[in-house]
Amino acid sequence: MTYCVAISIKSGIVFASDSRTNAGPDQVATYGKMYTFGREGERQIALLAAGNLATTQAVIAQLNRDVADQTEINVITAPTMADVAEYLGRVTYAEEQRHNTEISRAGFTAEASFILGGQIGSTPPQLFLIYPQGNFISSSEQTPFLQIGETKYGKTILDRIIQLDMDLDEAARCALVSMESTIKSNATVGPPIELLRYAVNSLCFSGYLHLNADNPYLIELMHAWDSRLREAFHQVPHFQWGEFPEGVRFL
Amino acid sequence: MTYCVAISIKSGIVFASDSRTNAGPDQVATYGKMYTFGREGERQIALLAAGNLATTQAVIAQLNRDVADQTEINVITAPTMADVAEYLGRVTYAEEQRHNTEISRAGFTAEASFILGGQIGSTPPQLFLIYPQGNFISSSEQTPFLQIGETKYGKTILDRIIQLDMDLDEAARCALVSMESTIKSNATVGPPIELLRYAVNSLCFSGYLHLNADNPYLIELMHAWDSRLREAFHQVPHFQWGEFPEGVRFL
Repeated sequence: MTYCVAISIKSGIVFASDSRTNAGPDQVATYGKMYTFGREGERQIALLAAGNLATTQAVIAQLNRDVADQTEINVITAPTMADVAEYLGRVTYAEEQRHNTEISRAGFTAEASFILGGQIGSTPPQLFLIYPQGNFISSSEQTPFLQIGETKYGKTILDRIIQLDMDLDEAARCALVSMESTIKSNATVGPPIELLRYAVNSLCFSGYLHLNADNPYLIELMHAWDSRLREAFHQVPHFQWGEFPEGVRFL
Repeated sequence: MTYCVAISIKSGIVFASDSRTNAGPDQVATYGKMYTFGREGERQIALLAAGNLATTQAVIAQLNRDVADQTEINVITAPTMADVAEYLGRVTYAEEQRHNTEISRAGFTAEASFILGGQIGSTPPQLFLIYPQGNFISSSEQTPFLQIGETKYGKTILDRIIQLDMDLDEAARCALVSMESTIKSNATVGPPIELLRYAVNSLCFSGYLHLNADNPYLIELMHAWDSRLREAFHQVPHFQWGEFPEGVRFL
């Protein structure tokens, strides 16, 4: 499994991804799921990948091949972020179809999904979630974050904290806490964690973090968050129990 | 959807359930999912239900009918909690099979699952999760809580807080916080919340709470937990960004 999240707010976009892949409990491996493309001062694009690893690797390979072959539409030439999303959806769906029959027969799925974010020239930054079927949605002012993979464990902290006008580094810390909660509750999501920062209108990535399991900051963060949560829990107001309705409760 | 959780620790068992059912967004209704059976001083049994509402209602009706008919095995006569679990699994599976073909054809599932907990005589309290197939697992010292329904949003706080030797009312507050997190992130789980307390060797339920959406304590809890979590988040240690590896990242 995988957990990836990206948060698009007024000050920019942050991207976070774990690095654990598994095809059954005895096939656990480490693969980065974060990819970037771009030219400084012109466009910057980041991708986060979830799903079938063969499909996501094939998709990234195809994106790179199209840049090398100077095709009409690729991640370097597409005029808008929406065009990149459209193109990525097309490549993803095509890759899934190539081996789909055989993969389904083996009881697996070729499906992959992506988070795509970035900025091209003077157009505003945009963030998309590309579905395995090739269609996509964008984030919005009401829904400023998008998640793929094992999304539920880390959603509640995002629901509470993320605001459009928050500080970009604060959003990055929230993505880390969301990642940490997911790792704590799900064995198929694990470090290294990658974190990437894009400040609005900068047209370059202005920060990157690669956190191994033994990274001192990651350990400090995990301990700090755990003990703060325990403190928070111990301050939850107490209540008085009431009486239980007597007898067996029928329908 | 549904969220139910029960926590079995040294001092007893607490049970919590929401009350929202939905069969599509325009068929949202309120049904309690907590049922109790027992005779004071002899045995006390609680059930939490998730899944197809027709199935869970039919199962509860059958349990009551078997008590009224004084069948050889029912919730009042079964000699151990494991026997109750076995019996409940059998009734559940049989009810699912009755309409299964028609229900599957309509694109739904007849499946239901239960959390079953309680104590019979001088045997230790036990907690079980009954699967739709009729088989079941029990909680353990390593895994003292069991969940059914929409389980992921509320799992992280349980993972952090629940300890075998904690206070029973503290475990009850943790179940409430777990429920609150789930309600916040998932629209198909909602109040009223029911909470039930069973203290070890008491052979009676010693506390019950029914919290409507406008219950002052529930509102206080939600506000308190939300603001404590925000405070906790603002104390997360800051970090220094590193440099991003240059150029396009290929496979």
